[in-house]
Parts: sequence; C-alpha cells; structure tokens
Amino acid sequence: MIHVEDAERIILEQSRDYGTEIVSFESCLGKVLAKDIRADRDFPPFNRVTMDGIAIRFNSFKKVNRSFKIKATQSAGAEPIDSVNDDECIEIMTGAVLPPATDTIVRYEDLEIKDGTATIKTEKVSFNQNVHFKGEDKKQNEVLVEANQLITPAVIAIAAAVGKVKLLVKKLPRVVIVSTGNELVEIDETPAPYQIRRSNNYTLDAALKQYGLHADMLHLPDEQNLIEEKLAFCIRDYDVIILSGGVSMGKYDFVPSALEKLQAEKLFHKVQQRPGKPFWFGMQPDGPLIFAFPGNPVSTFVCFLRYFLPWLKKSLHIETTEAYAILQEDFHFLPPVKYFLQVKLSINEKGELSATPLAGNGSGDFANLLKTDAFMELPLDRNDFKKGDAFRVWPFKS
Amino acid sequence: MIHVEDAERIILEQSRDYGTEIVSFESCLGKVLAKDIRADRDFPPFNRVTMDGIAIRFNSFKKVNRSFKIKATQSAGAEPIDSVNDDECIEIMTGAVLPPATDTIVRYEDLEIKDGTATIKTEKVSFNQNVHFKGEDKKQNEVLVEANQLITPAVIAIAAAVGKVKLLVKKLPRVVIVSTGNELVEIDETPAPYQIRRSNNYTLDAALKQYGLHADMLHLPDEQNLIEEKLAFCIRDYDVIILSGGVSMGKYDFVPSALEKLQAEKLFHKVQQRPGKPFWFGMQPDGPLIFAFPGNPVSTFVCFLRYFLPWLKKSLHIETTEAYAILQEDFHFLPPVKYFLQVKLSINEKGELSATPLAGNGSGDFANLLKTDAFMELPLDRNDFKKGDAFRVWPFKS
Repeated sequence: MIHVEDAERIILEQSRDYGTEIVSFESCLGKVLAKDIRADRDFPPFNRVTMDGIAIRFNSFKKVNRSFKIKATQSAGAEPIDSVNDDECIEIMTGAVLPPATDTIVRYEDLEIKDGTATIKTEKVSFNQNVHFKGEDKKQNEVLVEANQLITPAVIAIAAAVGKVKLLVKKLPRVVIVSTGNELVEIDETPAPYQIRRSNNYTLDAALKQYGLHADMLHLPDEQNLIEEKLAFCIRDYDVIILSGGVSMGKYDFVPSALEKLQAEKLFHKVQQRPGKPFWFGMQPDGPLIFAFPGNPVSTFVCFLRYFLPWLKKSLHIETTEAYAILQEDFHFLPPVKYFLQVKLSINEKGELSATPLAGNGSGDFANLLKTDAFMELPLDRNDFKKGDAFRVWPFKS
Repeated sequence: MIHVEDAERIILEQSRDYGTEIVSFESCLGKVLAKDIRADRDFPPFNRVTMDGIAIRFNSFKKVNRSFKIKATQSAGAEPIDSVNDDECIEIMTGAVLPPATDTIVRYEDLEIKDGTATIKTEKVSFNQNVHFKGEDKKQNEVLVEANQLITPAVIAIAAAVGKVKLLVKKLPRVVIVSTGNELVEIDETPAPYQIRRSNNYTLDAALKQYGLHADMLHLPDEQNLIEEKLAFCIRDYDVIILSGGVSMGKYDFVPSALEKLQAEKLFHKVQQRPGKPFWFGMQPDGPLIFAFPGNPVSTFVCFLRYFLPWLKKSLHIETTEAYAILQEDFHFLPPVKYFLQVKLSINEKGELSATPLAGNGSGDFANLLKTDAFMELPLDRNDFKKGDAFRVWPFKS
C-alpha cells in the first residue's frame, strides 16, 4: 500500500505524447492547441477609428478652426478618402480607417451638424484622439495564442481574426472503459433482485466527454479466461485502459492476475486512501497505461479526478492549478488513510471558497455525489479537521 | 441610459419557457433535466455485502464459535445461498447479497482459511457489520435527482442505475447570431487593408456550445433594406436573436431603427457600463427576444456573460450562484459608468479567490481575453478600488 503522493508521482511519470492532428475551426472547441497562433498582420491592421463622428486635422483645430465642411462620409469597411483641406472633415464611423490626411476624431456627442457643416462644441480635443493605431495591440507575426492551452471561445475569437480555418491540436489517447462484475446488467435491462445496473462506465464516459475524449466501452463478466482474452485485445488497440471493479481481494477479482499474465507491469496496487484503496495502476511495456479503479462508484470517481485527469492534463501539457477551500464544519476521521471528503463549494462575498461537507453513507452512496461538487483531500497526519481550516479540493468540474 | 441592475432586471423579467423534449441517455450530458428521477427500487436493492470474506451468524460467534466450515462460495450477481448451520459460513464477495440465514460479514483480513475452514482471528466482530442494508440509501420511488439541474456525470450515474434510457429535458431556445458590418469578411477570406475578419459570431457560437446550444449564424452588410428583410425572417424563425454590431451612433447603425420598424419593442438602449454601453434589448410581441450587443469583441463578451447567460439560466430554472473575488492591485476608474475589469482568477492555500487585473488597451484588445478568465464588476458609486477588497466576478466559464 502506497501513499497518495507516491501514487500521483508514479502516474505523472508516465505522461505520454499522443501526437497532433489538424482539425477544422468548427470542431476545435475544447481541444488543446498544439501550435502557437501568430498574428497574420498587425492588430489593429490599420489606424482604426473608435468613435462615430468626424475626422479632422488637429493642426486646423489648434488654429482655432471649429467649423468643418463635411467633404464625404466614410463607413467601416470602405476605402479611405485621401485628401482633406483645413476647413473640411470626413464624417466617419467606428471601425473605419483613419483617412491619411486626418489625424484626430471628434465624436458626435461633441458636435453640432447643420447644412453639411460640423461644428465642434468642446475645447477638449487632443491630437490623435479616438484612434486605435495600426499594430498598437500586436505586431504581425507576434504570438497571439500560445500552444498547450484549451481552445476556449476567446481562442476561437483570435483564430477567426487571423483566418485560421484549420488548427493543429493535440491528439487524445484512445481510451477504453472496461467494467467487470457478474452483478451488473445493462441499463435497459431489468435486474434480478441480486443484480444492479451498470453505471460506472457511463459516469466515466460522461466525465471524459467533458474533456472532449470519446471512449469505447466494454463489459466483462467475472470469468478469468474471457477477461484475459478481451484485455489482450484492449492492450493491442488502445492507449489507455480504464477498468472499474475486479481489483479488490475477492475470489473473482481476476483483473490484477489477468493483467500480470498479459505481461502488464504493476506499478502499484492499493493506495492509502478512502475511498479508492484497491486502485491498481500499471502499464504494458510499449503498450497502454492501465488505470484499474475499484468498482464502487464514488471510489471510481475519486480516482478519476485525483489521478486520471492530472495525468491527462500533464500528457497534453495543459497548465493545472491547485484549489483550496475552507472547511465549514469540524470533521473527525481516525483510520490511517487519506480521506476524500465529499463537499459542496461556494464563494462568499469576501471572496472565500467554502466547503461544506456532506457525510455520505460510506463511499457507496452515489446519490450524494449530486449534492456535492468536490472532494476535499484531508491530510494523512491528522485526525481532527477544524472548521475554518483550508485544505486542497478537487472540483468535479474544472 | 439605464443602470446595469435595471438592465438585468428588465432582461430577467423576460425569462421564457421553451418546453421539454425526450432525449436518449447517450445524448443528455449538459442538458437540463425537466423531470425528477426517482428510485425504481430501494437502494441498495438488497442487503449488500461490502467486504470480501465470509458470511456468518453473529449469534454463533457470540457463542464462542471461531471456526466455520465453508459451505459454499457466493459471488456478486449470484442468487443467495439459503441455509447455513451455526458451524458453517459462506465465503462471499463484495456486491453479493447477504445470505438470508446469515447477518454478519467478517473480512478476509481477519481470517485464516485452511482446508475449507475459516477461522476468525479477531475479537472485534459486531452484529450486521460490513452489510449495506436494502433501502438504507434511498427507498423505492424516492426522488434521486431533482428536476432543473444540469445533467453532469453524477446525474448520468443515477440515470443509469435506475434504467432511465430516455430522459425528459428542457428544450433550448432556437438562437440565431447575426453579425453586421461592411468591414467584416469571412474567416477564410483575405481582408483588404481596411477590412477585418469576423470573429464575434464565432466567439458567441462557441460560448453557446458550452451550454449545449447550437445556434445558426447570419451576416448582414450595412444596408438598411437588407437588414430589415433578413431580420423579419429571423423574427419569424427564432426564439432569440443575438446581434453584434450596428447599435451605436453611427450613420450605418441600422439595427435599432430596423428593429423598431419591424414592430420590435425596445425595452432599453444603452447601459451605464464600460465596455458594452450601446447594448440594445427588446422583443417582438409574441415573438423572439432580441439581444443587440455592441460590435466590439470584449463588449459583446461582457454583455453575453452579464445578461444573456443569467437570462438563459433563469429561463431553464437552473440555480445560479454569485462569485466574489479579492482584487490584487489598487485600481482607479473615474467615468460615471460601471466598469467591467478583466481579471485572472486564482485560489490560494487559504481558500481565497484572488483576482489580478490585466489592463487591456481599451475594450477592443481581444487578445487580452486569453490572459484573463473573468470580468470583475466594479461598483458605480466608487472611483477607487483597493487591493484586498472583494467584488463580484463573472467567470468566462461557469
């Protein structure tokens, strides 16, 4: 039995690179960018007018000129008008190019327009005002979005602006979720009184989908030969095998022995934690990584959040951040294992992240997962956890 | 010009119900549950063994019996074995049914098994231990998941467990995103020096996708007749029209007048905020709601987060929570409008949510959206915002 920190370290040492692929702009949301996005030209790409009004020469205004004949109107998206005299202006719109013969924009709010002449009603006009100059934000070829980040709506905005209709993104591992257990029937079947429907595989599948990962699913009955045979195919066809169930001390917990028979290398079995103790982790040399989680739904979910997701993020080089929350009730836990407490998070008006524990009926009461949104990881070296203390949390959604 | 709070109130008063639809279990993730999910039977559905070991009668243990002949082995998913004598036990696995003639489970760790006989090595055995009794978590017909919540992996787990292969979910509004502006070209086109590629519509589309909402997109040039004609179709075919651009004071900002000509009722135009001031909101009686956002990318994004998403959540009856964060630098802002400051959030080891401002180059520098992950809403009645003060934040992703 090893410590949580050692299990984490061993797993993170096995981060992998699954290469890259080109995807279309339409389907890139939620994927991880594999190559910097650079500016295809300066941003703004021209001296951009930022207010609706008139374009004038500031020198003319300085020479006490206040009335300007409107020579023409220039809209956004139109070619700039090229010559303007001292007593003339161009009526101009936000988003238009600053006409080269002008240098200053006076907004409508400061004008009176009558009979084709605009009169400036304010003395507060400054040189170059209301113009966003070419290249002021970014220069051509400058990096706008660095690689190794999740493609969010903000990244989409930039990709669109620079015309990136195809993007290089990280390939995700091919994952199979394998459930085991003779007591499990399909969700559309009516279970016998001593059976239950499977759910773990669907929970894992849904959790993976939130990270853009579409896994295959496979169910195996507790039969040693069949488990070996099917796992051999999984080892051949997938980058990652996630198992749930069959890793405990039971007579029909064939998973660890089947994996070892298939030359998978056990990197650890059993972690000093609750729930999730029977977790088995290993790998096939030159083959897939194998996360064999305990079958209990809450145990599976803890192991997924605490070990699989950090491994996935490290493999994709996504930056991860730690979160801490303040415990809202005293909590006591005696066994010499790290306890993952189910908590409900909230942020108060002081900007403090609070965690209210919801004591489940053991780790098996999956319905409690609904009322909580994070696990709080309680340090191993203590038994008493006081209201007001902050501890690390693992939100269900990040 | 109205206050942010009034704009919010007017919009939230227009929350709508778009009905419900039945979706398959496979495609329900991220949708909003429209009907409670109830337990189809007790949970656990039988007296469930929670440890691998042996099943005995506690009375026999009390009578100083420590060695039990293994009568049979009962796995999870098997029918229970029905009779056991005082000197007998059933070797039993986690997930199995407690055999009716027994009442207590002793785990392998406390046993020595030799020649078909299990000997208990501990004196710490208590009546009914290691059994999770029928109905202890939930009774048949009890509500497991209440309606009006987002379907997460935890909800999926419960739907699977009770065999819900079809789920009643909330219908989402039919949304069209309309961009306007002659300066905008498609993302696969090469813009002229005075043009830019459109991006706002793609940002909005991506942000909506994160809420499971697939919008249509339409681009309109700045031509009054065409805008009127196309908006008339939108009014007929959609529940919500989101516009970006064309709502300011410019000569070619035809959107407000076109909407009013089409009998759309203006509920407000212009909000005392920066960015996002020119926001126009209205509705067609018995027709769609119309969110006409300013064309600047950051303005659009602020309005989307601050107004559209709360409206969507209220319409779907999803519970919303407010978030506050602690400002990490002094900030000064003079104009008499509410400022939405771009900040980067992080949680420290004390469980405090910090917000570090990133001053953008005006609201137009969309590249800054990447380096931040929330807007901080700064109160209107102050100009100085001190390091250490907490203010409300609107995270880009919730």
